[in-house]
Amino acid sequence: MDPTARAAELDRADPLAGFRDRFVLADPELVYFDGNSLGRLPRAAAERLATVAGDEWGGELIRAWDHWLDLPVRVGELLGTKVLGARAGEVVVADSTTVNLYRLATAALDARPDRRTILLPRSEFPTDRYVLEGLAGARGLAIRWLDADPVEGLTAADVAAALDADVALAVLSHVNYRSAAIAPLAEITALVREAGGLVLWDLSHSAGVLNVDLAGAGADLAVGCTYKYLCGGPGAPAFLYVRGELQDELRPPIQGWFAQRDQFEMGPAFERRAGIGGWLVGTPGILGLTGVAVGVELVAEADVARIRAKAGELTAFAIEVADAWLAPLGVELGSPRPIERRGGHVSLRHPEARRRCADLIERGVIPDFRAPDSIRVGLSPLTTSFGDVARGLGVLRELLAG
Amino acid sequence: MDPTARAAELDRADPLAGFRDRFVLADPELVYFDGNSLGRLPRAAAERLATVAGDEWGGELIRAWDHWLDLPVRVGELLGTKVLGARAGEVVVADSTTVNLYRLATAALDARPDRRTILLPRSEFPTDRYVLEGLAGARGLAIRWLDADPVEGLTAADVAAALDADVALAVLSHVNYRSAAIAPLAEITALVREAGGLVLWDLSHSAGVLNVDLAGAGADLAVGCTYKYLCGGPGAPAFLYVRGELQDELRPPIQGWFAQRDQFEMGPAFERRAGIGGWLVGTPGILGLTGVAVGVELVAEADVARIRAKAGELTAFAIEVADAWLAPLGVELGSPRPIERRGGHVSLRHPEARRRCADLIERGVIPDFRAPDSIRVGLSPLTTSFGDVARGLGVLRELLAG
Repeated sequence: MDPTARAAELDRADPLAGFRDRFVLADPELVYFDGNSLGRLPRAAAERLATVAGDEWGGELIRAWDHWLDLPVRVGELLGTKVLGARAGEVVVADSTTVNLYRLATAALDARPDRRTILLPRSEFPTDRYVLEGLAGARGLAIRWLDADPVEGLTAADVAAALDADVALAVLSHVNYRSAAIAPLAEITALVREAGGLVLWDLSHSAGVLNVDLAGAGADLAVGCTYKYLCGGPGAPAFLYVRGELQDELRPPIQGWFAQRDQFEMGPAFERRAGIGGWLVGTPGILGLTGVAVGVELVAEADVARIRAKAGELTAFAIEVADAWLAPLGVELGSPRPIERRGGHVSLRHPEARRRCADLIERGVIPDFRAPDSIRVGLSPLTTSFGDVARGLGVLRELLAG
Repeated sequence: MDPTARAAELDRADPLAGFRDRFVLADPELVYFDGNSLGRLPRAAAERLATVAGDEWGGELIRAWDHWLDLPVRVGELLGTKVLGARAGEVVVADSTTVNLYRLATAALDARPDRRTILLPRSEFPTDRYVLEGLAGARGLAIRWLDADPVEGLTAADVAAALDADVALAVLSHVNYRSAAIAPLAEITALVREAGGLVLWDLSHSAGVLNVDLAGAGADLAVGCTYKYLCGGPGAPAFLYVRGELQDELRPPIQGWFAQRDQFEMGPAFERRAGIGGWLVGTPGILGLTGVAVGVELVAEADVARIRAKAGELTAFAIEVADAWLAPLGVELGSPRPIERRGGHVSLRHPEARRRCADLIERGVIPDFRAPDSIRVGLSPLTTSFGDVARGLGVLRELLAG
């Protein structure tokens, strides 16, 4: 069947199709393949931001802190229990992914003082590499680089081969930012734990699009951003997860007043409050958190299992169309073919990727370029239709066919 | 003259009176003495937030990063050069005050590896104490506590008496959060530098209300928040200042991708970009930054010298009224009397302060309570009138007179 007709059929059968109307679609002709970089604006976010600015900041003023104070923990709770498969009290929303990576990695390294090695895939997202490079340099530790297949991604065997009793910490993305390959979270977590190390997962490309199941995997530590599939807004505060049993054992390196028990008594010494709130640092950004709250509520309402199912179908359809229309024009698939091995985007490789991304944007199709040769097609299940896939890849076919 | 009549006269003569209309005054009867804790909402902020959310996030989507990317540096530049007396390229807006304190304190301690002592006033704001306590513990350093007069504040002599060749770093508030006492910034900076140490100034209670003159003082390092006199909004991103000459010498402990040269090449190793942008960390929160931009623009337009002059007059008038109306009822002044020795708020001490603050709020007068016995009266020059002072302290008089 022709991809365009097939897309229409898939859209009619899509149980999540109605969620598109919950977002602002300023230009209905635009094909947006970048919801995995900046998720679209929920209508409710625009409204709630106006309320928080106008009525709360403007009207309630300082009194609004009565209900703002626990927002990082409240939004974290919904995110943790409804989206990430964590148990109650294990997730909080605060700071940036980078700052959270630093904080949890430092705490993990402090907890394994006799080990001198950090495991890190060479294909890891830049900020993760830079943070760990900095920590390794400051502490005189070694980074052991993992070389995984650039398309198929990291396997448990890759990690097993590199593990030994000197590994303090492994820092790994659940979904690779380039290929969308899924790392086997539970299996790797078990392996590293057995070897006495800790794993810090970066969930930036899986939160809100995959079933993460942190509790089922017994994951120790995780961070991730909220502005991709969680639609929290540009630079919205990130999250962090610390398994309940580790929350007291590990020591936060940055001791701020939002982690202080009886914060407004402003006592003489730092006494960390119990629970995940003890992992807060400074004053949380309320406007940013407002966006995160709305996005997480939408994802929870849509149900992450249904979102994950649609992500599989969208990416499968994109691959089907790429095989039919683009492979003959020199495009190679840069993502795994089995549905269960990939996240919510598809990477298409072509030597002219950089130029073609610019051309696509000019034609109203917005992907991401990832150096040196990848067109990253992000398919955010709440806002991308199958029709978008057919239309967007159709434009790419026209461009490449010249 | 009766304080109420005198207030009317002062308001008529106030060159900044017109700025009140630039802010949302939802309840015109409310007396807001807490602009030093959460500054009021500028009308322009409500509008610009709607534009940034609706048109930029909603409409431009990922393309808006073209102009968002340098927002932390652009807003920092205006703040640094027009409000803080820094030179170009020395201030950036990012993260929280607490995270910035940690980052700059760590960099400073790394730069003085042979010294084992941190100077810290016992009266320092809690988050500053907690951060340094954590750093001292992790690095095996000692904190040498400075005991300053609780009302008159820290003097250069206090610092001189505690200085020696083992002091790596002093962390000091320019304006004390409780008493509003001003520390002699230039004098202390010179003293500590002469002894070979570094000073990290916390400008949270002086930014936007005093002439800070960082360049004139030759200050090395500073941080501060933007949600007080700068009216950036609840939990808005903070700022940090690093003297130009130190920017390469010091090493940021958290190496994030927003500090990377050629960020989107996503290269294999961290190469810090030149200048103050090299002190960024993760993805900046654009909604929060939008609020900061508006607030800083307003302060720059009003002119910080005029703001400082009005802060002096407002606090002087508050003290005059307190002397006349409240001293006979057991209220003691908890702030310095000479104008040049205090910032933008006045602390009033009374044994029943906690209960009286609650009563005031019920009567539509909003101060801050600071344990154990202070009513903190914040007088934000752009939004507080002399009439507010007379009305608010009049209500306190009624309450105390029973």
